[in-house]
Parts: sequence; structure tokens; C-alpha cells
Amino acid sequence: MDSQQFREFGKAMVDYIANYSDTIRERKVLTSVEPGYLEKLIPGEAPQFGEKWQDVLRDVERVIMPGVTHWHSPNFHAYCPTANSFPAVVGEMLSAGIGCVGFNWEASPACTELEVMMMNWLGKLLHLPEEFLNCAGGNGGGVIQGSASESTLIALLTAKEKMVRTFKQKHPDMTENDIKGKLVAYTSDQANSSVEKAGILGSMKMRLLPADSDCILRGETLKKAIEEDRKKGLIPCYVVATLGTTGTCAFDNLEELGPICNEEDLWLHIDAAYAGSAFACPEYQHYMKGVKYATSFNFNPHKWLLVNSDCSALWVKNSKHLVDTFAVDRIYLKHKHEGVMPDYRHWQISLGRRFRALKLWFVMRIYGVEGIQKHIRTQIGLANYFEELVENDKRFEVSTKKLGLVCFRIKGKNILTEKLQQLLTERKNIYCIPCYFREKYVIRFVVCSRLTLKDDIDYAWNEICSQTAQVFEMDKNNCLEGPPAKKLKFEEDVLNNNAEIVED
Amino acid sequence: MDSQQFREFGKAMVDYIANYSDTIRERKVLTSVEPGYLEKLIPGEAPQFGEKWQDVLRDVERVIMPGVTHWHSPNFHAYCPTANSFPAVVGEMLSAGIGCVGFNWEASPACTELEVMMMNWLGKLLHLPEEFLNCAGGNGGGVIQGSASESTLIALLTAKEKMVRTFKQKHPDMTENDIKGKLVAYTSDQANSSVEKAGILGSMKMRLLPADSDCILRGETLKKAIEEDRKKGLIPCYVVATLGTTGTCAFDNLEELGPICNEEDLWLHIDAAYAGSAFACPEYQHYMKGVKYATSFNFNPHKWLLVNSDCSALWVKNSKHLVDTFAVDRIYLKHKHEGVMPDYRHWQISLGRRFRALKLWFVMRIYGVEGIQKHIRTQIGLANYFEELVENDKRFEVSTKKLGLVCFRIKGKNILTEKLQQLLTERKNIYCIPCYFREKYVIRFVVCSRLTLKDDIDYAWNEICSQTAQVFEMDKNNCLEGPPAKKLKFEEDVLNNNAEIVED
Repeated sequence: MDSQQFREFGKAMVDYIANYSDTIRERKVLTSVEPGYLEKLIPGEAPQFGEKWQDVLRDVERVIMPGVTHWHSPNFHAYCPTANSFPAVVGEMLSAGIGCVGFNWEASPACTELEVMMMNWLGKLLHLPEEFLNCAGGNGGGVIQGSASESTLIALLTAKEKMVRTFKQKHPDMTENDIKGKLVAYTSDQANSSVEKAGILGSMKMRLLPADSDCILRGETLKKAIEEDRKKGLIPCYVVATLGTTGTCAFDNLEELGPICNEEDLWLHIDAAYAGSAFACPEYQHYMKGVKYATSFNFNPHKWLLVNSDCSALWVKNSKHLVDTFAVDRIYLKHKHEGVMPDYRHWQISLGRRFRALKLWFVMRIYGVEGIQKHIRTQIGLANYFEELVENDKRFEVSTKKLGLVCFRIKGKNILTEKLQQLLTERKNIYCIPCYFREKYVIRFVVCSRLTLKDDIDYAWNEICSQTAQVFEMDKNNCLEGPPAKKLKFEEDVLNNNAEIVED
Repeated sequence: MDSQQFREFGKAMVDYIANYSDTIRERKVLTSVEPGYLEKLIPGEAPQFGEKWQDVLRDVERVIMPGVTHWHSPNFHAYCPTANSFPAVVGEMLSAGIGCVGFNWEASPACTELEVMMMNWLGKLLHLPEEFLNCAGGNGGGVIQGSASESTLIALLTAKEKMVRTFKQKHPDMTENDIKGKLVAYTSDQANSSVEKAGILGSMKMRLLPADSDCILRGETLKKAIEEDRKKGLIPCYVVATLGTTGTCAFDNLEELGPICNEEDLWLHIDAAYAGSAFACPEYQHYMKGVKYATSFNFNPHKWLLVNSDCSALWVKNSKHLVDTFAVDRIYLKHKHEGVMPDYRHWQISLGRRFRALKLWFVMRIYGVEGIQKHIRTQIGLANYFEELVENDKRFEVSTKKLGLVCFRIKGKNILTEKLQQLLTERKNIYCIPCYFREKYVIRFVVCSRLTLKDDIDYAWNEICSQTAQVFEMDKNNCLEGPPAKKLKFEEDVLNNNAEIVED
């Protein structure tokens, strides 16, 4: 394909994407395909000779679209948002067009330097404590990772390395392996499953401590767990606090947890994957009160901040700990730019890296602080509006409401709401997923798509009301019992408090 | 930004990328900026109000381009290729435009199913043993990872979990931690540093075994190391063989290593990050003789197969081992599509995943098998041509030549070649990096950019010849000695055999 054909193909694709966005309401949010649908539509091996781009583009509609769950449909209210915006799409294009590999400064100076700057812009936007910023004169700094899972694992591995060194100095008689075998991490039973996964992959026992009845991890619970473990001769090492949990968007109590972690010298990592974006608005920054105690802080601009995946923002107060853990050869540290620019390959698992800062730059410039705040406020406003609709209907109750997430249910027995959930999913007009809150089955309604308008909320509410009428009709006729509703696997995951899908 | 503005901005960016490609020869391949250049060009925080896209696009040239090392310049002959093609750029656009999150089948069926199909297309293209394919009826299958580093780490963690289980069954008296502490992995001292890093991150001792004088890891060496370790009571677990090493593109001897791994029940992972793409041509498939012994196989289409980063292809013969390691909750395994479609979130570190199969699909269809083979053959042909130029000039010698990589030097003392390398880098007209081969300083010349033509090789050769004349002139005047040449950090890394940059 020469550059002239690319001009044609690329522009046709720009139009395709714009059209997709313009007409997304015409598509059912959920697909009707069965597993294996796609292999019936394309050959079993690559074509021998090159095909025309026009044929490939045509096949996007024929082959791909029938199997796409439309995450950006205004009728998508499941899990939580995954970000997407036009400036970010163009930023991604440019990143692919330049195609450099920014493993360290020299490999493409712009790639490292723009990332440093954008992580500072972003940290300032969120009003993070200065210590986390690269421009504060200390060892703080931010880096773009691929996912919250990665960030949690990276912080865990770093905490582990740090603790092994510290402990070994105090107890030179112990082997590194003995120390590693005694390390313990803590999080709440409401944490995303990616936290548990980090424990498994990083070979560190991860205790899922019970949250309180508001799904919040409290200081007393952590303190008790640490005491128990110290008595057993174990070594408490790492705590993951969640700001905005998967199920109900609960906020762990940092002002209680933080001082304990600091006193006990534990690494406190904050997972604010979804909720972090809201901190761009001053009125939501109180949700991170106590963030000053944290060792590392992570949120996903690729979730709610209009930046396409992947773009997970991780800050640490002391980047030297990352380098100590991830640099293969310590001689690397001694180079001419030491202290001037980070070698990001030593801040992450992989060595290569794409130029992901471009999309952050595009989004922050083209939206501006004001535009980003407006986006967050509009979405929370729509959730408030939905909450009001629920509150004003006596058949329903709101279980919890935080930011863009409303958990609600039909008053009375669980089976009513379960049936409602089932009918909604089968009809594929709107998409929500359920969870349990205080042992009651509730439907999570999240304002996800940036395209969502008040009319879309009304549409969703009408759909919910019409199906609720069905449910009551069925209940009246004693048709509700019977074989349990076939649940989507997603739903099972969420019901099992393993809704990683919301997080990553 | 509304969809109309996106149409304008997106199309302007398509033109920008096409123009960048069309005129890339006009830019110096290396930058002249100093660390910190970028913060002088942009504000210290995000703008309060949104800016026009025209201003942002203008700033790409003003702010970004001065700091870009042009990896796709035909004058870029360093490290190894990083892939980029027009169809892949458009595929990346579409992936961003759809913006779904394909953590498992239901989240977006097309995302999982196209990946399954594309990994089969790719496996067939390379003539991988059928057991690795998803369509072979067994438990084999392929998955797209972010990097070779990730793939190596994932295989290591899986090998570890598998070995701990097996060993624990035989020795129920041992704790898991005791077993973990005794595990050993093996690779060659020519392996990419990402292999060593995987050992560190996965807490497994990674022995770097000495390669032979052709930089090849031999069976005898591995056998001896395993015997030594077994005598010490350690537990050999994981072997990484490299097909196409970083420094000289050497191929470890799979036919010797494979049977040993199979007999000793070790996980054999193959890292063919760069060279794997050549296996698309039948005439290079002999380089992977013995691949049938492998447990997992990895190469990077994002390196030499025209697919933009990130796209690292990993196949395993038994995907159940991956799921056993990466699935947080085993209850997940019991779902209605079990055995039909993979839940890719259990095949990787992160839970979320982008729709990366689109760019593979676009590239394989628009190039066709023939087009891909032509690309590989053309690049190897250009390397052969360069080799010929070197061979025909009595001042030089070719140290090694494999695929698209020629290692050469000025005959005689090392300082001649060192000086040549220094002059070339300072002039920024072409970009190569050095390494050591049999204790001699050599320059690695790699055909990297898909835009490279015979004229570009001539240009590089003229540049090398003109600077070699300089070197001889300086030598004649005794000006060669003196303070050692200031090396780029990259060079140091490669010289220290830690050139991860070539690999990831």
C-alpha cells in the first residue's frame, strides 16, 4: 500500500469511525452472535495475494460489527466507562504513524519528555500531592502503564523488593526466599480481582479483609490483620486501598489506613482506576482525602478521562524504588542523563513502549481543563438525574449512588430485580450488570458513554419501567419462579465480587 | 470535538502521516535536542480552555518532531526493525474508534474471535507445529501480548506454577515457598536482557549460560548446568532459547536443547522476537528446526511483520496451564463457552485488552502472504547487498551476517571501528549501533525501515566509506587515541550485551 492509497483508506476509515459514532444508537448495544460465529465468515488462512482495502473496509461491517458489544453506545450502562474521544483517536493515529520505541530517553527524546510533562499536567489537574510530580524537585514522578492490573503488580513487586532489602539488612541470617515467603499484602474484599491476581503473580499472600457495611475498608480492620500476622512471624508489606470500588464505587478510608501504613512502614498503593478521573473537579477531591499517606497512586485516564486505552497513570513518590526493582543492570543508572530524564523502561514490566503521551496531550489541549471537568460533571449529572427517576418511583429503591454509578432494585424480594435484569439483557436495548449490596441483588446503572444525553437516560428508564411492569405481571401470575435465569458469565463474575471487567 | 471536526482533524492527520512518510529522508535520523528540550516549548500545565485542533497539529512539527528519533527512516540501521505499515496504522485507528474492551468472549465476541483466527493464520503462515494452533483440536492456541518481555514473563510464571504443583505432589512435605526458592531457569548469555528481567520479576534464578563462539547456546552446556543444579538440590524449571539473538542474530540449537528439556520436563520457551517474521518464508524455516520440542513460542509481528506495536504473538501447546496460573477464581472455568472460545484475560497479566487483532487482519489481507514474503525477502536482499559491498572493500571484514543484520568492522585494531561508529553517530545521517563479537568491536548494520531501497543502502555505504577515509586520515596523523569516544547509553547497553532495545 503506497502513501496515496493510505490517504484514501485512512480518510475512508476516519469517515467510518465518525459515522459509527453518529449512528451508534441505531445498533443494539449487545450482540446476537453465538461463539464461533466469526470463523464462518472468513477463510481459515491468510490470502495468498493482497486484497483491496475497499474489500477489507467493507468486511468491517460484515464480519466485525455483528460481534461488537458497543461500549460507547449511550445505552451501555454496564461495568464502568472505557474512554474514547476523537482527539484521543487522532493521537493514537499519530503514535502509530511515528512508530518510535521510547524505551529510554535517547530512543526518542520526545516520547519520554512529553510523558513526563503530561504526567505532571495530569497530576496537577487532579491536585495530587506535589511529592508525586516529577517537577517537584524530589524523586517523584508519573508514568503511563497499560492497565490498573499492571500498576498494582508493579507496585507490589517494588514493595516486595524494598521490603526484602530492608528486612535482610536487619536480619542478615534470613535468606531472601525465607523473607519472600513471609510477606503479606492486604486489600478489601471489595477490591477488584486484579489486586488478588497481582498477589498470585507476584507470589505474595494477598489477604482480602472484610469491608464494612458501606463496602469501605477501615483502619481498625487493617490494624488487627497486621497484628495477627506479626504475631505469626509474617511480614506485612503492601496495602492496596481502593478509591471507587468495582461493585458500588465505595471509597476506602485513607485517613485511617494511611497513618497505619506509614507507622508500620507498609507500601500504600491507591487504586482509583475509575473514580480518579472525578478528581479533576475540585468538588470531588475530598474523596481522596488522605492521599498524602500513599506511596503510589494509580488511575485510568482510559476509563473516564476521554483517553483511549491503553493509558493507566501511575505515580510514585520515590521512583528510585522502581528502578531498583526493574533495572536489570544497575550500571545503567550511571549515565549522562541520570536524574534529568527517567529511563521509563526501568519503571515497567516491558522494555519497549509506544508513544502514548500523545493522546493525553491531544485530549488535555483540545478539551482543556474546563472541557474535561464539564465531561465529568455532565456524566455525574446524568447519574443524578437517573437516581431521581428511581427515587420518584415507589416500586424502586436506590441502594447506593456514587459519581456516575447508581445501584437500584425493585423493592421486595430479590427475584423481582433478578428477573428485570434478565429481561433487560435479553432485549439488548440497554445493558446493565447486577451486583450484591448488603446481600440484596441490585442492578448497577453506570453512565458510561461520553455520547450519553438526557434523552438516553429517559430511554433507559422507559425500558426499565416497561420491563418492570412485565416482571410484576409475571409475579402476579406466579411465573417468576422456575429455572433460574441463565446468567451471562460477566454477571456471575460481578455477583462473585470478581468484576475485574470494571476495573482494568 | 464533534464528529464533523473529527472528520477534518482525522483527515488532516492522515495527510500528515503520509507526508511524514513521503519526506522522511529529508530529516536527520537522529535528533539534536538536549534533555529537557520539551519543557521549554510547552506550558507547565494543561490549558484551562480547549484549543483548536489546528494549533495542536501545528505543534506536532514544532514540539514533537525535533525530539523524534526516526525509527522508520531508511537511514535507521540500529537495534532492529520496529514494524509500521499503512494498513496497520488504519487498523489501529479502527481499534481506537470501536474502543471495546475484550477481556473475555462476551465483552466483545469479535475481539476474541478475530484474535483466535488471526493467531491461527499467523501460525500457519510461519508453519508452526499444529499443536500450537487453536484449530488443531487440542489445547493449543495463540494470543497477542504487548511485548516479548511480557511473553517471557508469562511463560516463566506459568512454568513456575506448573512445576510447583507437580513437585508438591511428589513432595507433599515441602512448602510451596521452599519449592519456589529452589527453581532455576536457564538462558544464554546472548539472550535479551528482558529474559533476565523476567527472572527477577518472577523471582526465579535465571542462569545465563555461556554461548559457543558462534553465540549459540548448545545442548551440552544446558545439560551440564541442569546436572550441577540437581546435585545442589535445586529444581530446574524453565529454559528460554533464542532464535535470532540481539547482538548477532544467532540461533540457539533447538535440536540439542529441545530433547533435553523434554526429558527433564522443563518448560522450553522460544524467543524469536525479531527472526520469527522470517519464518513466513519457507527458505528460512530451517532456522526453527526443533521447534516441535517447545512448550511456548513467541515472536513480534510488531518488529518485522509490518504490524505496528504492540503486537507480540505468543503460542502455547497447552493453554490450560496459562489459565491455571492467571485465572484468579477457578469457578470462572465453568461457564457455558468453556472449551469453545478462550477467555483471554486468563492468558495475560492485565485483564483489559484492546482489539489488536484488527491490525493483524488488515496487514495479512492487504499484503497477502506473497506481499509479506516479498517484504522479508526484499529486506534480507538489501542486507545481502550491503554485505557484498563490505566484502568487496578490502578495508573491511564481515563478522557475521544473518537475515537483515550484517556485523562488520574495519580490519585491524578496534579503535578504527570505534572511531567510525562515533563519527557516524555524530553526523546523524545514518544510525547504527555497535556490539562485540568474539571480543572484537563490530558495527551492527540492520535493514530496518520498510521504506529502505537499494539507493539508501548505497547512501549508507557512501557515508561509511567517507567516514572511514576520515578515520584512516586520523590514524595516519596519530589522532585516534585520546579521550575515549563519548558513547550513547544505547551503545553501552549493547556492548554490555544488554541490548533489550532490539528485542522488546
